Amino acid sequence: DFMNALEEVHPAFGVSEEELQQVVQNGIIHYDGIVDEILRTGELFIDQVRTSSRTPLVSILLHGPKGSGKTALAATIAQASQFPFIKLLTPDNMVGYSEGQKVAAINKVFTDSYKSPLSVIVVDSIERLLDFAPIGPRFSNAVLQALLVLFSRRPPKGRRLLVIATTSVRSVFPELGLSDAFDSELHVPPISSLRALDKVFREVELFQSSDDRRRAIAMLQQAGLGDEGEDGVSRLNIGIKKLLSVIEMARQEPEAVGERLTSALMGLGM
Amino acid sequence: DFMNALEEVHPAFGVSEEELQQVVQNGIIHYDGIVDEILRTGELFIDQVRTSSRTPLVSILLHGPKGSGKTALAATIAQASQFPFIKLLTPDNMVGYSEGQKVAAINKVFTDSYKSPLSVIVVDSIERLLDFAPIGPRFSNAVLQALLVLFSRRPPKGRRLLVIATTSVRSVFPELGLSDAFDSELHVPPISSLRALDKVFREVELFQSSDDRRRAIAMLQQAGLGDEGEDGVSRLNIGIKKLLSVIEMARQEPEAVGERLTSALMGLGM
Amino acid sequence: DFMNALEEVHPAFGVSEEELQQVVQNGIIHYDGIVDEILRTGELFIDQVRTSSRTPLVSILLHGPKGSGKTALAATIAQASQFPFIKLLTPDNMVGYSEGQKVAAINKVFTDSYKSPLSVIVVDSIERLLDFAPIGPRFSNAVLQALLVLFSRRPPKGRRLLVIATTSVRSVFPELGLSDAFDSELHVPPISSLRALDKVFREVELFQSSDDRRRAIAMLQQAGLGDEGEDGVSRLNIGIKKLLSVIEMARQEPEAVGERLTSALMGLGM
Amino acid sequence: DFMNALEEVHPAFGVSEEELQQVVQNGIIHYDGIVDEILRTGELFIDQVRTSSRTPLVSILLHGPKGSGKTALAATIAQASQFPFIKLLTPDNMVGYSEGQKVAAINKVFTDSYKSPLSVIVVDSIERLLDFAPIGPRFSNAVLQALLVLFSRRPPKGRRLLVIATTSVRSVFPELGLSDAFDSELHVPPISSLRALDKVFREVELFQSSDDRRRAIAMLQQAGLGDEGEDGVSRLNIGIKKLLSVIEMARQEPEAVGERLTSALMGLGM
Amino acid sequence: DFMNALEEVHPAFGVSEEELQQVVQNGIIHYDGIVDEILRTGELFIDQVRTSSRTPLVSILLHGPKGSGKTALAATIAQASQFPFIKLLTPDNMVGYSEGQKVAAINKVFTDSYKSPLSVIVVDSIERLLDFAPIGPRFSNAVLQALLVLFSRRPPKGRRLLVIATTSVRSVFPELGLSDAFDSELHVPPISSLRALDKVFREVELFQSSDDRRRAIAMLQQAGLGDEGEDGVSRLNIGIKKLLSVIEMARQEPEAVGERLTSALMGLGM
Amino acid sequence: DFMNALEEVHPAFGVSEEELQQVVQNGIIHYDGIVDEILRTGELFIDQVRTSSRTPLVSILLHGPKGSGKTALAATIAQASQFPFIKLLTPDNMVGYSEGQKVAAINKVFTDSYKSPLSVIVVDSIERLLDFAPIGPRFSNAVLQALLVLFSRRPPKGRRLLVIATTSVRSVFPELGLSDAFDSELHVPPISSLRALDKVFREVELFQSSDDRRRAIAMLQQAGLGDEGEDGVSRLNIGIKKLLSVIEMARQEPEAVGERLTSALMGLGM
Ligand SMILES: Nc1ncnc2c1ncn2[C@@H]1O[C@H](COP(=O)(O)OP(=O)(O)OP(=O)(O)O)[C@@H](O)[C@H]1O
Ligand SMILES: Nc1ncnc2c1ncn2[C@@H]1O[C@H](COP(=O)(O)OP(=O)(O)OP(=O)(O)O)[C@@H](O)[C@H]1O
Ligand SMILES: Nc1ncnc2c1ncn2[C@@H]1O[C@H](COP(=O)(O)OP(=O)(O)OP(=O)(O)O)[C@@H](O)[C@H]1O
Ligand SMILES: Nc1ncnc2c1ncn2[C@@H]1O[C@H](COP(=O)(O)OP(=O)(O)OP(=O)(O)O)[C@@H](O)[C@H]1O
Ligand SMILES: Nc1ncnc2c1ncn2[C@@H]1O[C@H](COP(=O)(O)OP(=O)(O)OP(=O)(O)O)[C@@H](O)[C@H]1O
Ligand SMILES: Nc1ncnc2c1ncn2[C@@H]1O[C@H](COP(=O)(O)OP(=O)(O)OP(=O)(O)O)[C@@H](O)[C@H]1O
Ligand SMILES: [Mg+2]
Ligand SMILES: [Mg+2]
Ligand SMILES: [Mg+2]
Ligand SMILES: [Mg+2]
Ligand SMILES: [Mg+2]
Ligand SMILES: [Mg+2]
Repeated sequence: DFMNALEEVHPAFGVSEEELQQVVQNGIIHYDGIVDEILRTGELFIDQVRTSSRTPLVSILLHGPKGSGKTALAATIAQASQFPFIKLLTPDNMVGYSEGQKVAAINKVFTDSYKSPLSVIVVDSIERLLDFAPIGPRFSNAVLQALLVLFSRRPPKGRRLLVIATTSVRSVFPELGLSDAFDSELHVPPISSLRALDKVFREVELFQSSDDRRRAIAMLQQAGLGDEGEDGVSRLNIGIKKLLSVIEMARQEPEAVGERLTSALMGLGM
Repeated sequence: DFMNALEEVHPAFGVSEEELQQVVQNGIIHYDGIVDEILRTGELFIDQVRTSSRTPLVSILLHGPKGSGKTALAATIAQASQFPFIKLLTPDNMVGYSEGQKVAAINKVFTDSYKSPLSVIVVDSIERLLDFAPIGPRFSNAVLQALLVLFSRRPPKGRRLLVIATTSVRSVFPELGLSDAFDSELHVPPISSLRALDKVFREVELFQSSDDRRRAIAMLQQAGLGDEGEDGVSRLNIGIKKLLSVIEMARQEPEAVGERLTSALMGLGM
Repeated sequence: DFMNALEEVHPAFGVSEEELQQVVQNGIIHYDGIVDEILRTGELFIDQVRTSSRTPLVSILLHGPKGSGKTALAATIAQASQFPFIKLLTPDNMVGYSEGQKVAAINKVFTDSYKSPLSVIVVDSIERLLDFAPIGPRFSNAVLQALLVLFSRRPPKGRRLLVIATTSVRSVFPELGLSDAFDSELHVPPISSLRALDKVFREVELFQSSDDRRRAIAMLQQAGLGDEGEDGVSRLNIGIKKLLSVIEMARQEPEAVGERLTSALMGLGM
Repeated sequence: DFMNALEEVHPAFGVSEEELQQVVQNGIIHYDGIVDEILRTGELFIDQVRTSSRTPLVSILLHGPKGSGKTALAATIAQASQFPFIKLLTPDNMVGYSEGQKVAAINKVFTDSYKSPLSVIVVDSIERLLDFAPIGPRFSNAVLQALLVLFSRRPPKGRRLLVIATTSVRSVFPELGLSDAFDSELHVPPISSLRALDKVFREVELFQSSDDRRRAIAMLQQAGLGDEGEDGVSRLNIGIKKLLSVIEMARQEPEAVGERLTSALMGLGM
Repeated sequence: DFMNALEEVHPAFGVSEEELQQVVQNGIIHYDGIVDEILRTGELFIDQVRTSSRTPLVSILLHGPKGSGKTALAATIAQASQFPFIKLLTPDNMVGYSEGQKVAAINKVFTDSYKSPLSVIVVDSIERLLDFAPIGPRFSNAVLQALLVLFSRRPPKGRRLLVIATTSVRSVFPELGLSDAFDSELHVPPISSLRALDKVFREVELFQSSDDRRRAIAMLQQAGLGDEGEDGVSRLNIGIKKLLSVIEMARQEPEAVGERLTSALMGLGM
Repeated sequence: DFMNALEEVHPAFGVSEEELQQVVQNGIIHYDGIVDEILRTGELFIDQVRTSSRTPLVSILLHGPKGSGKTALAATIAQASQFPFIKLLTPDNMVGYSEGQKVAAINKVFTDSYKSPLSVIVVDSIERLLDFAPIGPRFSNAVLQALLVLFSRRPPKGRRLLVIATTSVRSVFPELGLSDAFDSELHVPPISSLRALDKVFREVELFQSSDDRRRAIAMLQQAGLGDEGEDGVSRLNIGIKKLLSVIEMARQEPEAVGERLTSALMGLGM
């Protein structure tokens, strides 16, 4: 009967294909082993939800600095599940919503998901859903409480749900009581090696020739971006999203790509 | 006449059987003596309410870390009472409620209970009913005050009530003025011994053979999970609820169950 | 004419006999001299209101720890006055009231009292009327201000009023500006001697025989409950209300009454 | 024409004789020189308003501890003025008012006063008008701002106004911005000498004979109430209002008046 | 055409002559050189607005202690401009206004001013417009933000505006973000020399004869009011407004004018 | 088709030419190399938006002290783009708006921009849009959250948007969570060299002759305005906006221009 239920699901209220594709606009560049590892673990959770009746609800968190690729990875995992109900919950559609409207919108997505035997919900940018501001900190307690309940509310009999949340403010989760809210947490790091950088440059064909590329990488190395600071942290530290923007800006001055990259990546701005 | 009243009670507004069963979805595994002790003490309070006319109201608190099994145990005690009115008050049904709506819903359950000669109310997850957030802390003072009054408001003549509340934020109760609100408090601990773990593994048939199971336990012991840290606290420290989830995840990779368990239980995530 | 007015009073809006009786459900056990002293002083204030025209308004406060018997004593004093208007103002009837509704309800009782030549109002559990929470602290300033005015607002000509308030948070009164609000304050202590305990045991017939009782008391003494701690404070420290509850719980296991009492009174829970 | 205007005033909306008398219910006892001094200075300000056209608005503040007699003195000064408009602004009539309603009520009294050539307004108990609570502190900023404007808003041409305010929280006025709001401030002290006490006893005829009185005073002296503490502050420290209440309570036990007085005045309660 | 526009202005919505005169009720006494200097600088800003097309908006601030004469000076400068639109924005008319009503009233005055080619607006007592209370501090952020925008919003083409604001809480302007809001700031000091005092006495004819006056001044000198304290600050420190009030009070006792003045000026009250 | 879309755009809801011109009322004076550099970099970002399909959204921040010319420069860059949709979002039009109205107005501009293939929005004075006050700090979290979402919300397919924001409170951006909100940040410094000052004097023809100008500059140098303080910061430190106002004020006294300038620039006021 589980298989029956699966077939009966109306895709109508179901998969938001287009929305999901848009957030992966620039594709997934496999610049490092960690990228594949995250995608593989995501697959395992999809399997758990599909097969184990003991855990009808599984929730995971992708966290990492601004622009490290969390949303794109979450959407990619969700799409790969091929579950009949896949939904992206994003603050982009909620500008100007009151607390009550936000809670209602969020609650509706969860309630809708219960109509499908298998569902995955991407809860994107928890900090924005919460109207989070570091000072205070300020946040919508109403939304927070709704999320806390929804992240652990068992779906009705015969329904199963995977929740994939993303955030760039993991460090304040203890203060918000969100620390124990997830079954598992995955870190999405920024780019911090010249090797990964090189991979990206090639992928987006920033340079005319390999020689140009090698020269640029050398220039970055010279600037110390390959080294670690005294604290053992790499001097290179940039999310894939911002890196792609920096690259496009640098492209505007073909004669000075290397210089633009260097100064941008060293945090000197332009 | 007390016996008469008992018979006259309409089960209609009474027992929420199904709801209670659902929260004990995975049954009660007797992994440790404390489990039976809690259930036995619960029975005694049921008896007190049934027999003593001097204490028409008795309130107890089950507290312990996230996922230690509080809700399942409270529901189990309540069901065992066989009282004509048994009700689960849970934040799951109150997503998006205003403070006023929450107070009204809670008050109604207590007022309804007064219609039955014998009642038990499970007030589940006080922290969620209170919209509690650690930072501040923030909470609904309106709900708090309602609970404080209801936990000590004598039922009308001839009516008796047992309140079983649960919480995972017992440590902030003094700040909330909830310290003296209960007649008795019972601690529900997390799992912290390999023996208890072994019991659970057997119960859920995680391993194909006893040999496999023993090997996994040995691996966990090797990893230091059987030891105590310098603070005398066991390194193993996991609620039964999360343990069951970890087990189901590990089950997805039959060839590496032990490794998955070890890394998950050591807090390394996956 | 004062005597005339007295006779004309309609008991209709007057004495809430039943309500008052209910809060003294378990009677007054004279376990210690302080009990009689409090009742005697209460009588004196009743006399003052009845006879002195210079002080048409007298207000007193009964304060002490949770469950020490404040409400029962206040109700007993009020009932003994036999004044034509006796009213219990209690948070029990105000669950879910807004600040405004609370203030209106409280104000109404005071205004009603002005219709009677002689009145006594029991303002029970100020902390609950105030929606008081220790953290912050939070409280309803609207209710606080109403009480501050009402506790010192002279009744109209020819009317006299005794206010008896109770609270278990006397220590925060300075912060609330309630320190000077009363003409007199009476402390209602918890039970702290084995002699008083013994008196209560006898009164509620907890034991089958005097021998059993003596043995239980001896066991409690052995456990150190008769001693004072290093701070000179008795180790025994329990309100009469909770004591009565502990006794009824212990009664459920006739074979182990002494043990249950000991562990409960030593704060080890059950 | 000023004299004309004076005559035309309709007493209708004017003097609240009865209200003023009620707050001086127990008369003014001249227990100390300071009492006469305050009344005399009050007269001078009345004169200034009556005669000087340069200062159409004069505002003074009577401040002192709880129950020291501020309201009675302010009402006495106001009544003595015989101005066509005399009004008592008191929190007693404003229980349950919202901030807006308070501001409107206060503003109306000031606007009404502008119809009379000569007016005096007693603004009683600023702390209560402000809904002041020490913790925080909390207060109604709306009422505070209204008072700040009204205390310095010039009446229209040809109108003159004396404002007499009272408060027992003078020490927080700097934090409230009320420090410079008055043209002059007068301190109303509590009773702190046995001589003043003796004067009051005689006035209210507490004792049957002078011998009884002298013996009581001797007892109080013995108890150290005539001395100063180490800080040079008299141990005797009680407002006339509370003293009158203590006296009436003591009167209830004719055989032990001295003892009751002693224990009450030493702050031991009863 | 600028001259044309000037002529077309309807004085109707324009100059509030009477209102301005009233706030200078006691005239301007030239007790010190600083008084003339402030008036002269004010004139220069009037000229700048009249002649320079590069700065269609000029804003200045008069600040100084309570009662130092800020409002009177601002009104005097404004009146002297003879601009077709002169308006006094004062909290006196806004008692009980909500934040929204205040903002609307203020905004309206600015918008009205845009109809005149040349305008001057006196924004009196910013602290009161802001509902400012030192504790916290508390203030209306809505009004603050409106003022911040209006103080720097360029008038429409061909319109020019001078803003003269006054305040006695200049020291908190940095916290409010008001520090850089004005093109220029002028300090209005209190009276601190016996010479200035003497000038005022003569102007208001406090004394019958010059001899009386000289004797009074001598008495004040004797009292140390001519000296500076250890901190180099003059012991004499009083705003002209309060000084005029003190003088009128002293006038009531012709036989003791000098004594009254001395005690009042030394801050001993009366 | 991109070129087609471009042509189809209706200029109606598009360019706010006049509004933009008004904020550059006094033109752009090229007093320093940094001015040209900022304009050039702005051009590059315009190019990036026009040409790169990988980054349909680019956001930059112009920040610097009060009056340094941020708004004028942002408007100049925007106008130079010649994009079919150019809009100035300014607090000037939002006096008295509620939070909700502000968010709606801001959101509308962004949504409108999505109708044009190429758009630039100047978000002027973020601190005012946020109702920012340093104390607390206080700000509208609703507006902040709307901006945070809008600054990173991808425009629909085929649409591209450049956001140019300005602020003078860059230093509090970390507390507001605005630090990572922009792709790039450009600093707009105040004027701090006599050379730049000289350039401005010449441009606005403050002096009759070059000799006069040189003499004035010499006077400023003498006053130490050419030096650096001990902290290595130039003593001269003034935004171009305020400088232009100071110049116009000084112009009113042709005989003392140099003196007026010196005292104003040294922060001595006038
Ligand atoms: N390996 C990768 N992982 C994730 N995103 C990638 C990867 N390679 C390329 N991308 C591209 O990088 C961008 C990542 O942006 P994304 O919005 O997912 O980041 P984010 O971490 O969610 O940012 P934010 O913290 O602002 O929410 C996308 O455009 C995506 O197509
Ligand atoms: N001995 C046991 N005690 C409690 N629950 C058990 C036990 N054995 C198995 N379980 C199962 O473990 C789960 C316990 O989850 P439960 O919701 O009761 O935990 P909880 O402490 O209330 O969690 P939370 O802190 O999130 O509210 C239930 O599925 C229950 O069936
Ligand atoms: N000497 C006594 N004084 C007061 N109450 C007594 C006494 N002896 C027996 N009792 C019983 O003990 C109980 C006291 O409870 P009561 O509600 O008055 O306590 P309380 O101090 O008001 O508690 P709380 O702090 O919760 O308001 C009542 O049931 C009363 O009948
Ligand atoms: N010399 C006196 N001065 C003032 N009141 C006196 C004096 N002698 C007797 N009384 C009486 O004492 C009482 C003083 O009470 P009153 O309400 O004026 O005090 P209060 O200082 O205003 O108190 P509170 O601080 O509570 O407002 C009145 O009943 C008054 O008749
Ligand atoms: N030289 C002077 N400057 C200002 N006011 C003067 C001067 N001489 C006399 N006055 C009179 O002194 C009074 C000054 O009061 P004003 O209200 O202007 O003071 P203020 O500083 O605005 O007070 P506040 O701080 O309360 O707003 C007016 O009545 C004015 O006529
Ligand atoms: N190089 C320049 N850069 C910017 N503005 C200039 C320049 N030269 C002259 N100006 C003029 O200086 C004024 C700058 O004012 P603008 O409002 O842009 O400053 P701002 O930094 O935005 O001020 P605020 O901090 O108050 O918002 C404008 O009138 C402009 O015409
Ligand atoms: Mg994201
Ligand atoms: Mg639970
Ligand atoms: Mg009680
Ligand atoms: Mg009073
Ligand atoms: Mg003023
Ligand atoms: Mg600007």
